[in-house]
Amino acid sequence: MTTRSAAAGSVHSDRNRGRRVAVIGAGSWGTTFAKVLADAGCDVTMWARRPEIANEIQVARRNSQYLPGVNLPKTLTATDDLATALQGARLVFLAVPSQTLRQNLIDLEPYLDRRSVLVSLVKGVEKTTTMRMSEVIADTLDLGPERIAVVSGPNIALEIAKEQPTGAVASCVDLGVAQEVAMAANAPYFRTYVNTDVIGTELGGVLKNLIALAIGIVDGVGYGENTKAAIITRGLAEMTEFSVASGADPATLSGLAGLGDLIATCQSPLSRNNTAGRLIGQGYTQEETREQMQQVAEGITSVPPVLELARERGIVMPIVEQVQMVLSGKMQPEYLGPHLATEDDVPQAELSLGSPQIGRLKRLFDRMKGTRG
Amino acid sequence: MTTRSAAAGSVHSDRNRGRRVAVIGAGSWGTTFAKVLADAGCDVTMWARRPEIANEIQVARRNSQYLPGVNLPKTLTATDDLATALQGARLVFLAVPSQTLRQNLIDLEPYLDRRSVLVSLVKGVEKTTTMRMSEVIADTLDLGPERIAVVSGPNIALEIAKEQPTGAVASCVDLGVAQEVAMAANAPYFRTYVNTDVIGTELGGVLKNLIALAIGIVDGVGYGENTKAAIITRGLAEMTEFSVASGADPATLSGLAGLGDLIATCQSPLSRNNTAGRLIGQGYTQEETREQMQQVAEGITSVPPVLELARERGIVMPIVEQVQMVLSGKMQPEYLGPHLATEDDVPQAELSLGSPQIGRLKRLFDRMKGTRG
Repeated sequence: MTTRSAAAGSVHSDRNRGRRVAVIGAGSWGTTFAKVLADAGCDVTMWARRPEIANEIQVARRNSQYLPGVNLPKTLTATDDLATALQGARLVFLAVPSQTLRQNLIDLEPYLDRRSVLVSLVKGVEKTTTMRMSEVIADTLDLGPERIAVVSGPNIALEIAKEQPTGAVASCVDLGVAQEVAMAANAPYFRTYVNTDVIGTELGGVLKNLIALAIGIVDGVGYGENTKAAIITRGLAEMTEFSVASGADPATLSGLAGLGDLIATCQSPLSRNNTAGRLIGQGYTQEETREQMQQVAEGITSVPPVLELARERGIVMPIVEQVQMVLSGKMQPEYLGPHLATEDDVPQAELSLGSPQIGRLKRLFDRMKGTRG
Repeated sequence: MTTRSAAAGSVHSDRNRGRRVAVIGAGSWGTTFAKVLADAGCDVTMWARRPEIANEIQVARRNSQYLPGVNLPKTLTATDDLATALQGARLVFLAVPSQTLRQNLIDLEPYLDRRSVLVSLVKGVEKTTTMRMSEVIADTLDLGPERIAVVSGPNIALEIAKEQPTGAVASCVDLGVAQEVAMAANAPYFRTYVNTDVIGTELGGVLKNLIALAIGIVDGVGYGENTKAAIITRGLAEMTEFSVASGADPATLSGLAGLGDLIATCQSPLSRNNTAGRLIGQGYTQEETREQMQQVAEGITSVPPVLELARERGIVMPIVEQVQMVLSGKMQPEYLGPHLATEDDVPQAELSLGSPQIGRLKRLFDRMKGTRG
C-alpha cells in the first residue's frame, strides 16, 4: 500500500496554512482525526484529559494506548490544558464520549473564542435526553446553529490512521462553514464533502447501529450475504423514513453519512454492535452478551428510545422491531429476516412500509409469540 | 440453522396449487429457482439441454454437477424436451446464459402457449446488441410488454439452495403480472416483492458488476471497509444516475435489485467480478487475470459499452471511468478511490456529479497519466 501524504500533502498544506484548530479528546478517533487535520496542513493542538497522554503525543508523537504503532505528524501538538488547546482555534473538533460531551462543553466554555465553530465528531445520542450531539451543543452553549457543525461517514479510525482512502461529510446549516470544516479536513487520503443537513448527517450515525445489530444477529445464526443485503437495503429504508420524519433530507441518508456508514459498520468485525449482535444470534442472552463484552453496545441502548420515537411519528421499523423482539427473548434469532417483515395475500411493493402493514406485522409477531412463548 | 419449508410450506402450497410453471435451464441458478418455485407450491417442470442432467433431476432429485449436495423437491420434474416442459405453463422462467438467450427463445417459440408470460432470471446484456434480457425477449418473440417479466435481487444461488432468508423483486409493466410471478416464487425462505420498473430492475443487475470490479480492485490493493463503503455509496449514485437516464425509477435502484444486489455481489468472495478485480488490484494484467480465471468476468466486458452509453447521455461515472483506466493500465490500482474522483478548490456537495466535474476529473487523470506513464 502506498502512502501519499508526502507527495500530495503540499497542495493541502498550502490551502490550510496557518489554520489553527483544536481537537478535544485523545482517544483513537480524536487522535486519528487530529492526524487527518495535520496531514491536511492545519496547525493542530490536541487536548487530552490525562497529562501522560498529552505528554506522549507531544514528546514521542505517539498515542500508544489508543493508536498503537501509528506515527503522528510533527505539526501536531498536545496539551492537557484547555485554555492552551483552544487559544486562537477557529475550529474546535469534539471527540469525547457522547455521555461526557455536555460536561466537556461546560468545562471549555470559558476559553472559547466567540467566533469559534464547534464541530462534533461524535456519533450517538445523550442517553438522559435522547438529544443528538449538535443538540447537546446548542443546549449547553450560547451558540447560533451557524457555529455548530458535524462530521460523519464510513470512518473506521484504524483504517484512516493507516491512510486508506476514506470519504466523510461535513455538515452545517451554513454551507460556508461546512466548506471551511471540509477544507480543514481534506488530507490526501481523506476527502470531506459538504451538506447543510445536520439532522440527517447525525441520525445516520445513530441509526446504523441498530441495523448493524440485526446484521450481527443473522451472522451469528449463520445466514449469508443474501440475508444481510436484504436487511441493509430495507434497514436503510427504515433509517431514511425515520430521519425524514425528524426533518432530514433523504439524500443525506443515501450518502456517506447514511448508506456509507451503515455498510462500513455492518462489514466491520470490530464494530461493538456487530459483535453484540453475533453473540445474541449465537444464542447468548442480552445479559450474557453484556458480561462477555464487559460493556453495553450503543445500538442496544438505542433500540427502545428509537422505537418509541418511531411510534410517536407513525413510522414502521420492522427490522428494528424484530431486533427488539430478539433482544427481549420474544423471537428466536433465526426468525429475524426481511421475509418475515410482512405476511401478505398479495405480494407487496418493496418500499411500501405504510400503516396497513403494521397490522400484519403485529399479527404475525403475536402469532409467533403465541406459538413460541 | 432451521429449515422452515416443512412447517410453513402448506400455506404457500395452497396459494399456488395447480400452478404449472416451466424453468428453462438447469444450471445452478435455474435449478435453485426451480426449487424455490416447487417449495412455493408450484407444479414445476425444468428443461435441461443435456438429457443426463434432466434424467438425474427426474430420477435422483439431484443436480450433482451444478448444485451438489442439495436435495430437490419431489414436486419438481425435469425433461430435455421443450414441448413437454412448456406444456400448460402459464409462467416460463428463463435461466439460460445471457449470450444464448436469443437462440433459446427461437427454439422454444413453437411450443409457447399464446398466453404464457416469459420471466427472465438472467442478469446481463447481449454483447452484440447491448440489449437487456427483456429487450432480447421483445426483439425475438411477438409478445406485448405485459407478457415479459424479470426477477432480480441479492440472490446468491447456493445460499438460497440452503434455504437462507432471501428477498427478490419481480417486475413487469403490468402490476398484476408482477404479482402473479411474485406469488409463484414466494417460498418460506424466499420472499418476492413487486414493481413495474423493468428497466431499473434489470439495470441494477448489470451495473452492479462494474462496481463489484472496483471493490475487488481495492480489496486486492489492501484497502478496507472505509474505502469500500465509499465506493459502494458513490457507485450506487452512478448506477442510479445511469438508470434514470435510461428510463428507470430511482427508487428501484435503492431497493433489492439495486442496492441489495450491489451489496451481496460486493461482499461475496465467490463473485467472478470480485475475483477478477482482486487479481487486477494485486497487480495482474487483464490478460493474466483472464488466463488465471479461464474466463472473462461479465463486468469487464460491460465497462466499455456502459461508459459509451453514459457519455452519450451526458452522465459522469467517475468510479467506472477509474475502473476502465485501471483495466487499460493507465492508472495504478491503488489510486482507485473516491477521494480522487474530483479535485476541488471548494469542497463539493456529495452527490453533485454534474458536468463541471467531468473537466476536473479529466484534468486529474491526464495529469496522473503524464506523471505516471
